[in-house]
Amino acid sequence: MDISLQVLFFLALLILLAKAAGGLAARIGLPAVMGELLAGVLLGPTLINVWRFSWFSATATTGGHLHISLAAFIDVLAELGVVVLMFLAGLETDIEGMKRAFGPAFWGACGGVILPFVGSAVISHALGFKWTEAVFIGTILTATSVSITAQTLMNLNQLRSSAGTTILAAAVIDDVLGLLVLSLVIAEESHFAGAQAGGGLLSFGGTIVRMVLFFAFAFWLGPRLIRFAFRQARHFHGAHIPLAAALSIGFLFAFLAQYGGGMAAITGAYLAGLFIAASPTHGEVIADLRSMTNSFFGPLFFASIGLEINARSLGGHFGFFSLILIIAILGKVFGCGLGAWLKGMSAQDGLIVGVGMIPRGEVGLITANIGWAAGLVSSEIYSLVVVLVLATTLVTPPLLSFCFSRKPADLDISGASAGLEGVSHDP
Amino acid sequence: MDISLQVLFFLALLILLAKAAGGLAARIGLPAVMGELLAGVLLGPTLINVWRFSWFSATATTGGHLHISLAAFIDVLAELGVVVLMFLAGLETDIEGMKRAFGPAFWGACGGVILPFVGSAVISHALGFKWTEAVFIGTILTATSVSITAQTLMNLNQLRSSAGTTILAAAVIDDVLGLLVLSLVIAEESHFAGAQAGGGLLSFGGTIVRMVLFFAFAFWLGPRLIRFAFRQARHFHGAHIPLAAALSIGFLFAFLAQYGGGMAAITGAYLAGLFIAASPTHGEVIADLRSMTNSFFGPLFFASIGLEINARSLGGHFGFFSLILIIAILGKVFGCGLGAWLKGMSAQDGLIVGVGMIPRGEVGLITANIGWAAGLVSSEIYSLVVVLVLATTLVTPPLLSFCFSRKPADLDISGASAGLEGVSHDP
Repeated sequence: MDISLQVLFFLALLILLAKAAGGLAARIGLPAVMGELLAGVLLGPTLINVWRFSWFSATATTGGHLHISLAAFIDVLAELGVVVLMFLAGLETDIEGMKRAFGPAFWGACGGVILPFVGSAVISHALGFKWTEAVFIGTILTATSVSITAQTLMNLNQLRSSAGTTILAAAVIDDVLGLLVLSLVIAEESHFAGAQAGGGLLSFGGTIVRMVLFFAFAFWLGPRLIRFAFRQARHFHGAHIPLAAALSIGFLFAFLAQYGGGMAAITGAYLAGLFIAASPTHGEVIADLRSMTNSFFGPLFFASIGLEINARSLGGHFGFFSLILIIAILGKVFGCGLGAWLKGMSAQDGLIVGVGMIPRGEVGLITANIGWAAGLVSSEIYSLVVVLVLATTLVTPPLLSFCFSRKPADLDISGASAGLEGVSHDP
Repeated sequence: MDISLQVLFFLALLILLAKAAGGLAARIGLPAVMGELLAGVLLGPTLINVWRFSWFSATATTGGHLHISLAAFIDVLAELGVVVLMFLAGLETDIEGMKRAFGPAFWGACGGVILPFVGSAVISHALGFKWTEAVFIGTILTATSVSITAQTLMNLNQLRSSAGTTILAAAVIDDVLGLLVLSLVIAEESHFAGAQAGGGLLSFGGTIVRMVLFFAFAFWLGPRLIRFAFRQARHFHGAHIPLAAALSIGFLFAFLAQYGGGMAAITGAYLAGLFIAASPTHGEVIADLRSMTNSFFGPLFFASIGLEINARSLGGHFGFFSLILIIAILGKVFGCGLGAWLKGMSAQDGLIVGVGMIPRGEVGLITANIGWAAGLVSSEIYSLVVVLVLATTLVTPPLLSFCFSRKPADLDISGASAGLEGVSHDP
């Protein structure tokens, strides 16, 4: 079957199933995104495993000369989807609240890097792994990808609450810290592996320089570029030109964050959304992006995470897996929660921040992939870590939903109506 | 560079350039879609040729095991885009007007199949081509893809005018007739090529059976399925569930039209849009789909058509190319125009219908590809025909815009406000 036909049929199936499962989840009081994830798990290799059907198998070519498979196409489209999603999360962020949240977010991010890193490295070594492997497992678990948290917060109308704002700020800081840890670990381990002495330090310095350059671009040129683009867009008077300009800017920032800054693409997309949110034009963009995300990119991305989970690959490692999963969860909950609490948050909000930071998502997968490509973790550990990273994503929505349900209602007011209709965003 | 990064950067560039060119075109009085096409031509092999840059070249892999190239990804995404576009065109169609337009549309479609088929086959044979090749060139030129026309009509707020409605009805009928011609020609030519006698007729019968089955599904089960889906969607009360359901249905119809009925995917998507337009829920879906199409799928699809045009491949065939292009254009203008005029349309509206039917778009490309794969046309003719098909797409927006500018303003009222805001669609 032609690849375009595969895509049409598969997307029809995936969107329908994801939204139906999301609707069912919402009806029993869970965040809709939980249902979307589970729809993917249902179709994935653990249960039905759609990729084994010849209809969806990777034999199709397009145009006779360019090769492409359905699984790869969906994969890349889903990565585009998470960029759109985090861009929207940036647009919906309460900027004033974010400035106030910097202190708790910074210390929360630090706690959420140190505790999982040390905890999982020590436990892994205690269970018989070499230090190089154990340290790299720790490095993978310092990552955070709050896309699922952002979606859950949107479902619960809590994105603009003080805990929600703190989580998003902490995620950006976590991305910076995680990258520093990653490049330090790689520098150190390649030093132990006998590479020339200066190379590791040089690459660590390079990482910092790239990151600083990206932030300089983003914070200094970014807002100017956005104001310029929207001013131009106004002149054209075409259909949905501001929305197209916003999407372009979001994609560009995502690209520059990863290619230029070496960071996660979603961090760039989030920052772009944040800067546009500070511009007067953003009101007309948010509603459109929300419909695009809720109906297409969102269900696609979350179902595709589920699609990649293969619980069968755990094999005999179930004990180790469970132990590390618990450390991964508790490390973030206590690490982030304590950091945020020490800087003046309530214990309950600190707990929510900690839970919101649990998912490692695609940022963890990218780190694992780098370690695997550099030979620092074996294939066996790699596939175990993939399930681990995805499991942290899976547990977050219900935990977060539970935490909010125990929270006194008066604290919810700040975000409730604003998150739902975007009315307060309008100039 | 990782494929996801390529996609982010390329989409940022493509959307920005396409919308800017569209805005410029609109400012000098041309349809915006013309600018989007030309932005693609600028990036394509005729001029800049982005694919030769190593940044965009097809060396990237994802996940280490699934292969995919940027060009292929953009190609498949653009085909998804045209499906969304024609789905929206269906949603925006004036259904009562469409019923009234059946007569002119049917005879217009017939005229627009016969004249280009006979004309280009005879001329090609006169210029020295074998009859098998000449007849197949004629077959390719019977195709019609009105996506560019639909977008131009939306830009001009004329989609719901009587000419606009007639064009869209004629395009569906043209797809049926074109497929009949194609399967007859293939049956006949494989008979001449010495295949077993019954095979061709059998395959022609099979084509008709498949088509009838698809239409039976679409017209009988389709509306019921849509009513059922939207009733279920209402129960869920999730975010944008009706829009997600609509997209799913559009993709499903597109898939079934091509895979089941052997027709063009866009015909299925258009019919799905038409049926949803007849349901009470469609009002809330149209505005969202319009923003998605105008900001993302539309510019992507039209720029990608431009990207595929390679005027350099014409080489020494420029004379033949020009002649066939003129026949391709005049065949539709006079064939469709006369048919519509004979069934009571004004000469001016008939002319507009004829011009609107000129573009062959991806339907012509699919036909050419089938003939090339079956060995009925040589590679040289194939690449010539590709440029030809794309050239018919390129000339349509300015011609259509010119025709409407010569038209008395009183006839424009029917579509003006409805097309712009979708207000009259609401129940």
